[in-house]
Amino acid sequence: MNEQMRRWEMGAFGRAALALETVAVPRPAAGEVLVKVAAVSLNYRDLLIIANGIGGPLTFPFTPASDLAGTVVEVGAGVTRFATGERVISTFFPGWLDGLPTGDSASLPYRALGGAYPGVLAEYVALPADWLARAPASLDDDAASTLPCAGLTAWTGLVARGGLKAGETVLVEGTGGVALFGLQIAKSHGARVIVVSGSADKRERARALGADLLIAREEGDWVAAVRAATGGYGADHILALAGGATLGRAVEIAAIGGRIAQIGVIEGFEATLPLGPLMLKQLTVNGIGVGHRRSLEELVRAVDAIGLAPVIDARYPLEALPRALDHLERGAFGKIVVTLGPA
Amino acid sequence: MNEQMRRWEMGAFGRAALALETVAVPRPAAGEVLVKVAAVSLNYRDLLIIANGIGGPLTFPFTPASDLAGTVVEVGAGVTRFATGERVISTFFPGWLDGLPTGDSASLPYRALGGAYPGVLAEYVALPADWLARAPASLDDDAASTLPCAGLTAWTGLVARGGLKAGETVLVEGTGGVALFGLQIAKSHGARVIVVSGSADKRERARALGADLLIAREEGDWVAAVRAATGGYGADHILALAGGATLGRAVEIAAIGGRIAQIGVIEGFEATLPLGPLMLKQLTVNGIGVGHRRSLEELVRAVDAIGLAPVIDARYPLEALPRALDHLERGAFGKIVVTLGPA
Amino acid sequence: MNEQMRRWEMGAFGRAALALETVAVPRPAAGEVLVKVAAVSLNYRDLLIIANGIGGPLTFPFTPASDLAGTVVEVGAGVTRFATGERVISTFFPGWLDGLPTGDSASLPYRALGGAYPGVLAEYVALPADWLARAPASLDDDAASTLPCAGLTAWTGLVARGGLKAGETVLVEGTGGVALFGLQIAKSHGARVIVVSGSADKRERARALGADLLIAREEGDWVAAVRAATGGYGADHILALAGGATLGRAVEIAAIGGRIAQIGVIEGFEATLPLGPLMLKQLTVNGIGVGHRRSLEELVRAVDAIGLAPVIDARYPLEALPRALDHLERGAFGKIVVTLGPA
Amino acid sequence: MNEQMRRWEMGAFGRAALALETVAVPRPAAGEVLVKVAAVSLNYRDLLIIANGIGGPLTFPFTPASDLAGTVVEVGAGVTRFATGERVISTFFPGWLDGLPTGDSASLPYRALGGAYPGVLAEYVALPADWLARAPASLDDDAASTLPCAGLTAWTGLVARGGLKAGETVLVEGTGGVALFGLQIAKSHGARVIVVSGSADKRERARALGADLLIAREEGDWVAAVRAATGGYGADHILALAGGATLGRAVEIAAIGGRIAQIGVIEGFEATLPLGPLMLKQLTVNGIGVGHRRSLEELVRAVDAIGLAPVIDARYPLEALPRALDHLERGAFGKIVVTLGPA
Repeated sequence: MNEQMRRWEMGAFGRAALALETVAVPRPAAGEVLVKVAAVSLNYRDLLIIANGIGGPLTFPFTPASDLAGTVVEVGAGVTRFATGERVISTFFPGWLDGLPTGDSASLPYRALGGAYPGVLAEYVALPADWLARAPASLDDDAASTLPCAGLTAWTGLVARGGLKAGETVLVEGTGGVALFGLQIAKSHGARVIVVSGSADKRERARALGADLLIAREEGDWVAAVRAATGGYGADHILALAGGATLGRAVEIAAIGGRIAQIGVIEGFEATLPLGPLMLKQLTVNGIGVGHRRSLEELVRAVDAIGLAPVIDARYPLEALPRALDHLERGAFGKIVVTLGPA
Repeated sequence: MNEQMRRWEMGAFGRAALALETVAVPRPAAGEVLVKVAAVSLNYRDLLIIANGIGGPLTFPFTPASDLAGTVVEVGAGVTRFATGERVISTFFPGWLDGLPTGDSASLPYRALGGAYPGVLAEYVALPADWLARAPASLDDDAASTLPCAGLTAWTGLVARGGLKAGETVLVEGTGGVALFGLQIAKSHGARVIVVSGSADKRERARALGADLLIAREEGDWVAAVRAATGGYGADHILALAGGATLGRAVEIAAIGGRIAQIGVIEGFEATLPLGPLMLKQLTVNGIGVGHRRSLEELVRAVDAIGLAPVIDARYPLEALPRALDHLERGAFGKIVVTLGPA
Repeated sequence: MNEQMRRWEMGAFGRAALALETVAVPRPAAGEVLVKVAAVSLNYRDLLIIANGIGGPLTFPFTPASDLAGTVVEVGAGVTRFATGERVISTFFPGWLDGLPTGDSASLPYRALGGAYPGVLAEYVALPADWLARAPASLDDDAASTLPCAGLTAWTGLVARGGLKAGETVLVEGTGGVALFGLQIAKSHGARVIVVSGSADKRERARALGADLLIAREEGDWVAAVRAATGGYGADHILALAGGATLGRAVEIAAIGGRIAQIGVIEGFEATLPLGPLMLKQLTVNGIGVGHRRSLEELVRAVDAIGLAPVIDARYPLEALPRALDHLERGAFGKIVVTLGPA
Repeated sequence: MNEQMRRWEMGAFGRAALALETVAVPRPAAGEVLVKVAAVSLNYRDLLIIANGIGGPLTFPFTPASDLAGTVVEVGAGVTRFATGERVISTFFPGWLDGLPTGDSASLPYRALGGAYPGVLAEYVALPADWLARAPASLDDDAASTLPCAGLTAWTGLVARGGLKAGETVLVEGTGGVALFGLQIAKSHGARVIVVSGSADKRERARALGADLLIAREEGDWVAAVRAATGGYGADHILALAGGATLGRAVEIAAIGGRIAQIGVIEGFEATLPLGPLMLKQLTVNGIGVGHRRSLEELVRAVDAIGLAPVIDARYPLEALPRALDHLERGAFGKIVVTLGPA
């Protein structure tokens, strides 16, 4: 193992502060493992964290990003959960193993990697063994790195809290990372999938992934379009990825008894929605905050069983992080991965 | 049985159009029963229906109100569900027996008594036997008449869809009919109950009903007050009875994993709420539209088992409907009942 | 429409008493529809009913069988649920629309077609419109007729009460009608499927349907074989189709938290099972009695969405019922259908 | 703190091997806390463990018993979960925090205190902080010590996995520790409770605790008696505490859709049950293995909210363990506690 390694660090908010530093490889403390990082998947949230921390305090120098795939190369004292040579992925919320996260009505449980905890854009990271899950055998490292946040969020919304079953109709907003996982997970459960997108090109790519119905967001009233296309029925599950006033559209388009997974906030952290249809259609809105480790383990198992291949729009080497962030800002079809190469 | 009876009718929108008419006692058709009405409970929704129909078409002359208790005095051909002499209550949404109501994403299932269907402010009504449930043995007719809408709504929100259990904390907004049912149902399941009310007098009356914690709505920031009073914890269940921007307060005050039953719209049919805590606290918002007949039957059984005594703020004779509506408009502590007397 | 039609009737218990009679085509009463029967699917239970009624009283002359597909050719007074020309299938338990069936601890709810109610082995049947569901558009009548009992039973066990999700492991006992539906439904939800069968030929046919793991029942201890083949893990869901002492094997083979759908009784109506693993593995045993109409409607929707093609081992014309019953007695790979031809 | 303490130890199976030894007070390792034990509650299972280990290997010298209440008197390195002076109770299955325990189809997850792990019949124990939960503020130590096994088992069966609600009917077999917790938890959720007991005296004591209906087990067919007493309805929830052939009686007495919590094995580890009613009544049998720490924390919260007072039949000082075991063998009304006195 090299004694020195590269790690992205920022000493202040803003992308201009990001620098690829050379630092010592960390040592795993008791209960920790040392992971040689092979791939780091980026999320829209990383842009916000880098820009301003999303309101939370960061400890500088700070390393961004939460989602890694890699290989355990050393285990600290007392670790039995993983052995050297095992392939692992990170958990977005370290320590949230099952059930509910820790917190209360005022103290939001937002202690994630690449946020309240240091991130993973480095050649090596030392993490508590409990903060990791086994990587799926069927995916390479680039693909495996997309599961901890985007994959798990879609799984939590549709399966763990949505109870998706064959024959139901799922609507996903857009074609970003969570959206495409939602499309693929829904298809693997026998659902019909509607994708609403503002790009003809992305609609075609979504169709190739199995989407049954493509709705053009740019053409007037897409709520009416979805209703027309489903004979009025609407959607049993909606992955609400826009936030803001668009959550109200999810309420409009939901079928009787429909479930809305509120996930994204691209259009704003404050939502407005009509209460009449929410009540009369007996809807459920589930606030989805990624999910816990047990669900991630279920997703890994499902990925292996169904051969789900995460959609990676582009790969960038570690030193090209700025270009990767540019791409993320423009909007990706699926995921963007920073590739560090195999162990 | 008298051949003539009294019935409230309106030939146009507006309270001025209400008239107590003398009409023929209806005959039960095949599948119907004739009910001698003993009590009719009023809901805030009846005020809106009388004023403007809440946007839905009414058939004039129209009789308002949905919630009755009475006695079957005659059964039509083919009826086996009830026999003469049995005490019954109405169901708010006729024909919604279990599961989900009929409708689709655009066609809201709002076909209720005293709305899309004729109402029950009459000495006799003829209704399909399937539209009725057995009255609880432990309640007199006045009390039994409060279950179909207010009682069932609280039950659906807390129990049928909320999964309430002992030791949880329930917050109810106000001291109206649904709120006090929520308080009583919550206490009967071993929960702690917080009542937020703007009236010191009503808070004292709520305390006498078992409320554990009374929060003054009029004194500044009641979200902060609830947090302080619960050591930050918040509430596991919230009966959201105000609607509008107040739904956002429910999101703020919810505990981790909390469930919000969206029920009321006094402050507006358009809600605004913050998405950050909705997602990070892993909340669920359940849109509650009263509930189905099977839940009403469960509530009736529970009322008998626990000795729940619905809170009736005032009783009015049939001819005093205008005064009853005045009272409803001022705001009641619990329910207002129009009493027609026993069979 | 012909005024006369053929119908299988028996005047006493026993297959010798079965006769193909010519009788008048029935007329639909109020609330009923007249269905021209195109296909009738047989179940193992029909053999028992014909032999001795399974302890329940039958009204002679009696017509067996419960599962039909056909076309509405006439509607009785007041029917709005179906129109002439619509393709329908029967429900096994007429009147069980949702939730729970009617009955109590002592009075078992076993009022099914071809049992407490007359059966459907006839060219025409008149049935209440509520006793029917829409046929799936993607299936012909022969295939559609297999859904009401076998298809729905597997759906109830795995999906409606099992909550199946991708990545889970499902074990099905044998290759009869319910077993193969279980296999196909499980695959359509992204599960891994283990089939235990005593026939090498049937195992190969199950493999062609997508089974991931085939276990030879005839070779010694198949519990050990399943454990070995799953690395000890076992199965998350088990369709227990044998009954008797074999239910104990389901308990042994279940994974931690596993769910056993108790369905079949070929090896006996009295089961024995070990309590230690039932408790320590936190298992759930769901007693499955076919299911309600709402679940059947969900299954129909799923069949159309996923293109599920029910496995029909053999088709027989109406007059060949005795040969169809012989085949059923020998054991079928999937379903046996009595075909009456299209409307 | 004394340097020496007393602890019950056995060097071989059998009660004759039990000896009250004087040993060194243990020191808390990293992650552990030292607890001054104030009370230890005994379970029927402890008799079996002492007699023969129930088939599992024990490490001798072995200390029995799993359920303690006490006070943290020292914390090891890195412990943040508890501070000195906090009152705690043990968890029966150390490390099972939420969701499902660890294990597989063949390896039963039966790693409990006073079994696979050393027990707690000592003046001090050093345990990982994760193995403890906060004691309820409303209970003294004797009462608090009864929650980890008996209290939690009843809670898991009725609430966590049973979904108990007001108005339902609960049947409990006997008047042991789990049975009386079941009675009290059921009453606190507004349920009606039937107790089946073979002792007139215990039936009277159960009535005083709130039981609604007492059935004499010794008088012939108690299934028929329960049916008669409930008008045929039966019970929505059954705490099956006998095992063996009695599980079949639970199936007979269950209401439509009833849930049976299989808990006890006094009459045998092999159960027999009739499949017809299991299936037709759409029953669920939940195998209950105590429960996880999150449920225990919910129970603690509920105990404080509802003022549940566990029933302690008798208290014995530490040195009187043999008499306590004698009492346990004769059968207790509720719990038997070994009292060590306050910190």
